[in-house]
Amino acid sequence: MTGTPLFPPVSPPDAESRAAAFSHQLTLTKPGGSLGRLEEIGAWLAACQGCCPPDRITDPSVVVFAGDHGVAAHGVSAFPAEVSLQMAQNIGETGGAGVNVLARAAGARVRVADVSLDHDADGPDRVRRSCGAIDVEDAMTAAETAQAIQVGTRIADREIDSGADLLIAGDLGIGNTTPSAVLIGLATGTEPVVVVGRGSGIDDEGWKRKTAAVRDAMFRARDLKHDPVAVLRAVSSPDITAMAGFLAQAAVRRTPVILDGVVVTAAALWAERLAPGAAEWWMAGHRSVEPAHGIALAHLGKQPILDLGMRLGEGSGAAAALPLVRVAVDVMRDMTTFESAGVSGAN
Amino acid sequence: MTGTPLFPPVSPPDAESRAAAFSHQLTLTKPGGSLGRLEEIGAWLAACQGCCPPDRITDPSVVVFAGDHGVAAHGVSAFPAEVSLQMAQNIGETGGAGVNVLARAAGARVRVADVSLDHDADGPDRVRRSCGAIDVEDAMTAAETAQAIQVGTRIADREIDSGADLLIAGDLGIGNTTPSAVLIGLATGTEPVVVVGRGSGIDDEGWKRKTAAVRDAMFRARDLKHDPVAVLRAVSSPDITAMAGFLAQAAVRRTPVILDGVVVTAAALWAERLAPGAAEWWMAGHRSVEPAHGIALAHLGKQPILDLGMRLGEGSGAAAALPLVRVAVDVMRDMTTFESAGVSGAN
Repeated sequence: MTGTPLFPPVSPPDAESRAAAFSHQLTLTKPGGSLGRLEEIGAWLAACQGCCPPDRITDPSVVVFAGDHGVAAHGVSAFPAEVSLQMAQNIGETGGAGVNVLARAAGARVRVADVSLDHDADGPDRVRRSCGAIDVEDAMTAAETAQAIQVGTRIADREIDSGADLLIAGDLGIGNTTPSAVLIGLATGTEPVVVVGRGSGIDDEGWKRKTAAVRDAMFRARDLKHDPVAVLRAVSSPDITAMAGFLAQAAVRRTPVILDGVVVTAAALWAERLAPGAAEWWMAGHRSVEPAHGIALAHLGKQPILDLGMRLGEGSGAAAALPLVRVAVDVMRDMTTFESAGVSGAN
Repeated sequence: MTGTPLFPPVSPPDAESRAAAFSHQLTLTKPGGSLGRLEEIGAWLAACQGCCPPDRITDPSVVVFAGDHGVAAHGVSAFPAEVSLQMAQNIGETGGAGVNVLARAAGARVRVADVSLDHDADGPDRVRRSCGAIDVEDAMTAAETAQAIQVGTRIADREIDSGADLLIAGDLGIGNTTPSAVLIGLATGTEPVVVVGRGSGIDDEGWKRKTAAVRDAMFRARDLKHDPVAVLRAVSSPDITAMAGFLAQAAVRRTPVILDGVVVTAAALWAERLAPGAAEWWMAGHRSVEPAHGIALAHLGKQPILDLGMRLGEGSGAAAALPLVRVAVDVMRDMTTFESAGVSGAN
């Protein structure tokens, strides 16, 4: 990467608040450490907020980054490309998609950012109409790449400035697990046949076509790995690039994020290269059945909260994990202490 | 087991409603099966309720079975025995224990059933004061065992008759992972050193004492395995026996249950023998770090929803899983279908 960094330095979550959280948890009426991951999550939120106990999460927000993919015309998906637009309406207007139901139950709002759906439309988040077929051409131009990063950055700012205290990025776009496999294969040095999954449910022939496309795209980008912006330009898409900008900016703005599935985590791998240290502001919500997802999470050093065999995207896995993240704060704020409850400690 | 069965036959959850649930889920706007375990949970609730889509869970109820254990005097726990009574107050009156916080977040009520805490008290659920040290003597008499089963049965009836549509059993009692290890070792044919864990956090010397107690208790009950009531009498406790009655009666009453950790699952293994087929009415909420818990779940053929390294007891792991069980219903009731949302299906 050349020139000025795109993002200011990311400061880490506050170590003192994290330590205070673990100390506080030892005073609560339970055996030390007996709430397992919930205690880690509570300490992470304390560190992100820089206070102990952390404030309750009151305004979590899901942004679904929507875009189409030129590579979808090469037979890599079980669904026709028009589904992207139909689902954008189902999520953004009807409110009847999986992520809407899961987010509603968890008390989170959901909005769709139309970055690059395949239609003629204007909009604050639009970068272009669909994108290049990454097995044979760049996803977008250098100017579009810069614009996509800015769009994601601006969306993060907008959400945080309007009160969001926890962010979730979701994905929407037929064909989007193909660039995700490419991005994860490149970032982790993993073979195409290992990172390619069934996406929304392709058959064996489709899987072969998808693997060939992933192989060709990885080959095209083989010399770009040192330059995250060039990789995003060559083999991602405007929506995934915007998502990377969003994840990086969330960290710059010291706002915790729950990562969703394979598409978001692919963006996250490269967001960490755009803004080193950003990953400390992210918690892995779940592990999907896409093989590349587990590889990407391991590369980021993340242990997912849930492992429910989900593979829907849209931010649904992160939304499913949100109640556990919220209750981790309740534990720290609402449990009695050994002293306040008059309970004897360990021998 | 001799004489009249203690429970009427358990009828299985409704297979037609389960099949209808999976069919309905295929019409929802998502790739088929892409919500993973959430779809299985939704289908299980449909089968339990005998209708599709299932009704929302509106009144889930946690009953914490509290009792003391004679074996605690033999140095098997990290905490002094008076903590049982103090925690019963913390849960039942103050509402400040882990299970209170987790249940509140999940919209469930919590009550404590004092079956055999170590104090002089009257109460509708009382069987006796504490119980025998199971490494050297029976936990209780035959009459007390029958009474404990009846207490648990009556509590299930009371909860269901007052509107509970999903039940969770929790445990409370210093020393209670010792009888649990015994019950799981006996039911699954597993060696003491494999089933004995750290409980609330004993050190190496305590672990050795606990393992010796488990070995002695398993030896005492070695010839009783064909008779679940005799096993419960010899090596469990009134509270765990009541819990077994509760789990069996929930199934008789066709009411779904989320199982908690090692103590509840130990009771469940023997409840399934009291009322064969009952296990189909139970879902495993989580896997705790107690080694015997995973063994017991595998023996029951249960895959836990959560695996968060918890080991608190009280029903806390089941309460943590409850939001995911509830949202599995929302998915089936609130998601749009391909037809209603005008979304194209797979190619």
